[in-house]
Amino acid sequence: MSGGCALCDTPGGEVLWADERVRVVWPAEADHPGLCRVVLQAHVAEMTELARSERDALMTAVYALEEALRELLAPDKMNLASFGNRIAHLHWHVIPRFTDDPHFPAAIWDVRVRPNPRPVPSDFAPRLSAALTRRLSPGVA
Amino acid sequence: MSGGCALCDTPGGEVLWADERVRVVWPAEADHPGLCRVVLQAHVAEMTELARSERDALMTAVYALEEALRELLAPDKMNLASFGNRIAHLHWHVIPRFTDDPHFPAAIWDVRVRPNPRPVPSDFAPRLSAALTRRLSPGVA
Repeated sequence: MSGGCALCDTPGGEVLWADERVRVVWPAEADHPGLCRVVLQAHVAEMTELARSERDALMTAVYALEEALRELLAPDKMNLASFGNRIAHLHWHVIPRFTDDPHFPAAIWDVRVRPNPRPVPSDFAPRLSAALTRRLSPGVA
Repeated sequence: MSGGCALCDTPGGEVLWADERVRVVWPAEADHPGLCRVVLQAHVAEMTELARSERDALMTAVYALEEALRELLAPDKMNLASFGNRIAHLHWHVIPRFTDDPHFPAAIWDVRVRPNPRPVPSDFAPRLSAALTRRLSPGVA
C-alpha cells in the first residue's frame, strides 16, 4: 500500500534488523526509550489474516526481541501489544518495563505518573542490532 | 503458586475452553463486553521463559479466539496484549474493537471517551465456547 499508511511509507524508527517479511525498529521514544517495534513488511491488519508461517515469522522476531531486551536492559517486566486501531498495518510493541518508569504498573497508554528516570545505554542500538542478528540470522553473525 | 496470584487462585472469568496448559475466560467487562483472555495454567511471567511448545499452545489459543471473535462479532479491529505488570502470570487480552466503543481509536487502557453502545448477544458465551471447541478440540465437537 502506498500513500496513506505510515508503516508502508516509512520504516517507523531506526531499523535494527530486517528480512523480507519482518523488520525490527527502534523509535527512541522519550518516555520509554527501550521500546521497539516488530513490523510486518506487508500491509496486513490482523494476525488471523496471515498464513501460519507468516504469523510464526512475526512472533519469532517478537520473542527474539523480547529476549535481547531482557538481556540488555534487565527490565522488571516485558509488555507485548498489537493494536493497529490508527495504523491498521501489523506491528508489535515490545516494551521493557521498569517499576520506576513513567507509567508503571499501568499500561504505557494510561496516564503518565512520573518522569522517565532511565535513558538507554549510548550503544543500545548497535548492541541490540547485533543481538537480533545472532538470534535471527545466525549465519550472518 | 498459591496465595497471592489472582490467576492462580481464580479462573479470571467464565471458562469457555480449557486444556492442561491454557484456558480461555470471559470476564464480561462492562465497557468491552467482548473482551476475553487466554491464561496460561502455570504461573510464569514472560513468553521467553516458556518452552517453544508452550508458547505455541498459548498463541494457538489466542489465534483461535481472535478468529472466533471476528466471526461472532465482526469487529472493526482486533487488539492483542500481554502485560502482567500487576499480575505477573501470563495472560493475553484479546479484544474486539469497534469504532464507536468507549476508547476507540485509543487503547482500552487510555481515557474513556464515550459510553459503550454495544452489548454482546445473549448467547455469546455458549456460541464462543462452541467455536473454540471446534477450533481447538476438533475431536470433541
